[in-house]
Amino acid sequence: MSKAKDFITTQDFTKEELMEIINLSLALKKCIKAGYYPQLLKNKTLGMIFQQSSTRTRVSFETAMEQLGGHAQYLAPGQIQLGGHETIEDTSMVLSRLVDILMARVDRHKSVVDLANNASIPVINAMSDYNHPTQEMGDLCTMIEHLPEGKKLEDCKVVFVGDATQVCASLMMITTKMGMNFVHFGPKGYQLREEHIKIAEENCKVSGGSFLITDDEDVALKDADFVYTDVWYGLYDNELSEEERMAIFYPKYQVTQAMMDKAAPHAKFMHCLPASRGEEVVNEVIDSEYSIVFDEAENRLTSMRGLLVYFLTRAAKPESEEAKAESKAELEKLMSTLKY
Amino acid sequence: MSKAKDFITTQDFTKEELMEIINLSLALKKCIKAGYYPQLLKNKTLGMIFQQSSTRTRVSFETAMEQLGGHAQYLAPGQIQLGGHETIEDTSMVLSRLVDILMARVDRHKSVVDLANNASIPVINAMSDYNHPTQEMGDLCTMIEHLPEGKKLEDCKVVFVGDATQVCASLMMITTKMGMNFVHFGPKGYQLREEHIKIAEENCKVSGGSFLITDDEDVALKDADFVYTDVWYGLYDNELSEEERMAIFYPKYQVTQAMMDKAAPHAKFMHCLPASRGEEVVNEVIDSEYSIVFDEAENRLTSMRGLLVYFLTRAAKPESEEAKAESKAELEKLMSTLKY
Amino acid sequence: MSKAKDFITTQDFTKEELMEIINLSLALKKCIKAGYYPQLLKNKTLGMIFQQSSTRTRVSFETAMEQLGGHAQYLAPGQIQLGGHETIEDTSMVLSRLVDILMARVDRHKSVVDLANNASIPVINAMSDYNHPTQEMGDLCTMIEHLPEGKKLEDCKVVFVGDATQVCASLMMITTKMGMNFVHFGPKGYQLREEHIKIAEENCKVSGGSFLITDDEDVALKDADFVYTDVWYGLYDNELSEEERMAIFYPKYQVTQAMMDKAAPHAKFMHCLPASRGEEVVNEVIDSEYSIVFDEAENRLTSMRGLLVYFLTRAAKPESEEAKAESKAELEKLMSTLKY
Repeated sequence: MSKAKDFITTQDFTKEELMEIINLSLALKKCIKAGYYPQLLKNKTLGMIFQQSSTRTRVSFETAMEQLGGHAQYLAPGQIQLGGHETIEDTSMVLSRLVDILMARVDRHKSVVDLANNASIPVINAMSDYNHPTQEMGDLCTMIEHLPEGKKLEDCKVVFVGDATQVCASLMMITTKMGMNFVHFGPKGYQLREEHIKIAEENCKVSGGSFLITDDEDVALKDADFVYTDVWYGLYDNELSEEERMAIFYPKYQVTQAMMDKAAPHAKFMHCLPASRGEEVVNEVIDSEYSIVFDEAENRLTSMRGLLVYFLTRAAKPESEEAKAESKAELEKLMSTLKY
Repeated sequence: MSKAKDFITTQDFTKEELMEIINLSLALKKCIKAGYYPQLLKNKTLGMIFQQSSTRTRVSFETAMEQLGGHAQYLAPGQIQLGGHETIEDTSMVLSRLVDILMARVDRHKSVVDLANNASIPVINAMSDYNHPTQEMGDLCTMIEHLPEGKKLEDCKVVFVGDATQVCASLMMITTKMGMNFVHFGPKGYQLREEHIKIAEENCKVSGGSFLITDDEDVALKDADFVYTDVWYGLYDNELSEEERMAIFYPKYQVTQAMMDKAAPHAKFMHCLPASRGEEVVNEVIDSEYSIVFDEAENRLTSMRGLLVYFLTRAAKPESEEAKAESKAELEKLMSTLKY
Repeated sequence: MSKAKDFITTQDFTKEELMEIINLSLALKKCIKAGYYPQLLKNKTLGMIFQQSSTRTRVSFETAMEQLGGHAQYLAPGQIQLGGHETIEDTSMVLSRLVDILMARVDRHKSVVDLANNASIPVINAMSDYNHPTQEMGDLCTMIEHLPEGKKLEDCKVVFVGDATQVCASLMMITTKMGMNFVHFGPKGYQLREEHIKIAEENCKVSGGSFLITDDEDVALKDADFVYTDVWYGLYDNELSEEERMAIFYPKYQVTQAMMDKAAPHAKFMHCLPASRGEEVVNEVIDSEYSIVFDEAENRLTSMRGLLVYFLTRAAKPESEEAKAESKAELEKLMSTLKY
């Protein structure tokens, strides 16, 4: 059993633990679709730290908290510093006294790790330059919901097309952890690196999954069940110009109908969004019947509900009905004597 | 019966439908004044998109959601783009998966129309450069609350003084829709335009109301029951300078005690606020006993409560108690087996 | 009994009234620690006006409202003006119609006073350039929780070390009001001023407390029960340079282990945070066992819960169960006839 109080990377958890969270997420989704909102996070507060602005992540987390009876506080970029005038240790300890759980979208992975290590409450990584584990969990929900008929998760082949972004690395982590077959189809120099390969090898050894990194389109796409892509530029501070990066990926790595035709006939198209239509993917694909990008967007919310319930329930301290009743009686006595 | 899932303009609704929403708004106000907060929006989330900052609108919507058991998410100017890197279609579809209802204050009317057309959830127009329908609904509540003794709504004369702003256009739309008598008293070149006149004519044909556009003060103010004004500048990107615009409206269109003396003795003064005191209105008028500007401000909240309940109830899908119970049982079973 | 509807300065209240709020705060803290969240602020909305950004204050207030069943709206710096285009009187009157209670962190004390004087709802001062009364109340909670064994509050000596900031002035106000013994240990030219001395004298006359302003370290620290400090620069617009201000306070006024050794053996270290480690305090002190700075940070939340319940309960209007039932019946009848 994992001892992790935080959700920094899926690598801290076993396949079984991750599946427990996924099942919880899907059960919560079913409840809410049916109009039943379990108030499991009643009176709980989530602090949301954003070093980069992100509407999608913010809206998902805030909706997840509210639907389950809790509340989220949005701390916009610039509103809170991690390691500026105040040390990150002090900020972590203060926030641990004021809210119940934290999430952080950070520029540098080290910031969310430091926050988690110094906070006494759970911390969820809502994307760093290294990985995007809440996206992983949502994507796994989406793949489960769209499993090819007659196939198990472990039978599926998932192909990421394009640049080795943190979403690509994350997709590798969750698929190899689950025992699936992962392929990164990308140009040399922009493929997953040594550190990623080490993780993929470790995961596959335990799970029985496989992984491949290639720039051969036919090999990559053959029998693919899920084809996934992400933007080609705009994610990094000191990256090459838009033109230079386009020249690297276009046209070979653009997901077109012709590329999809090389995958399995039932293959689904995925994208973490926002998409640059006409660049990494054409309208014909993203607007097709086999595109599941909006289900995928909705499952960001699905995964967050499960993660919040899981980590807050885990962090909950035992309560005594006697202590509750005593504190209630004292408060009521005091309120009745207030001299306004 | 209107098929509109959205509240983009009052022109999409019949007089009867609008009165239904108004009556709902006034009933909700009565409840909350009595200390009873109907939890009709429990667990519902409103996404608030602001392309321009507006404290009044934001605070009203957020309070309305919270008082009725729901929650509002504030997406500040710059935090979300409508049609930037991501297409407005994609943004609309993603947000439709993450929240229950949207409102948008937009620079260009087309943006809120596009948002509504692409979203699968209700969208409320919280002001565009074309109209301000939530203001209309609040103003109608205020006029109903301050009806001259013995008069019906249809007997009243409403005079808008000054520039043909979107608030002026909106006041024309709601009053002519209701069968009231509307006058725009403004200088040539700054009067309601052809497109507005067409709407007014259509409305009056159905409702039996009347409208007049004039720069004759005596004609305009005679027997007026409500005198309304708005600011003279600061609303548009490429407008004339403050001095040039002042020269157009001052002193003739400044609402003074002398101007009010030309209206009916029981006439009330209205303003959508914020006011530029000493410009479009003098302190003597806005601070008078017959000024109802703060009731009007409060009724922004009144109208929003009714609109949110109306459009969310309308959008609600049928629920099955069986499905709720089943999903609840599954969740509870799963929670009881979690291995923390 | 104080007539104040607002919490602008603790000077508006008697020792007994302040102790009533403190006891309420501590009772609420006990409830929430036990897992019982009294929903005393159900459906109530707090408007939070910030002229300066402050994570700590904002997070505390927002958590306090949510834990007690209410909601807080964050109006960030620049989002709302106090006395810009719209007069502060108009803003106060409009917000009084839209929310239930206000808090303001302001650049100039006059702004929060004007806001309170024009608003019909309670206003809480969340720090001005003059004082910081919510910090005072939290600090008093912290001192009560850490009272030296066998001592009453009135027996304690509290020493503020460094610049006469608003936190220093506030600490003087609450300690002398309570009948404690207060010392400001700071360099001439940066000590509490005539206006403060007048308050301290008035308070001590009533309470039996004492106060002293000195630059003699041995006299200041002797038998001190609580040693408190704050930053040396960064609070004011037109202050001296960092180097110039460092030269004034360093090294004499830096809280070190050597300085703490001059206080009572059981003395506790306090700081309002954020701290500039290595400037006004060294790590050895702030990270020591006798440092209670994080309890102090948590008690910002403790004091806010009590203040919000106190002022909202006080402002509550009498309710009639009959009126509630009548409004509920009318609403339900209307809802049942809506023609969607």
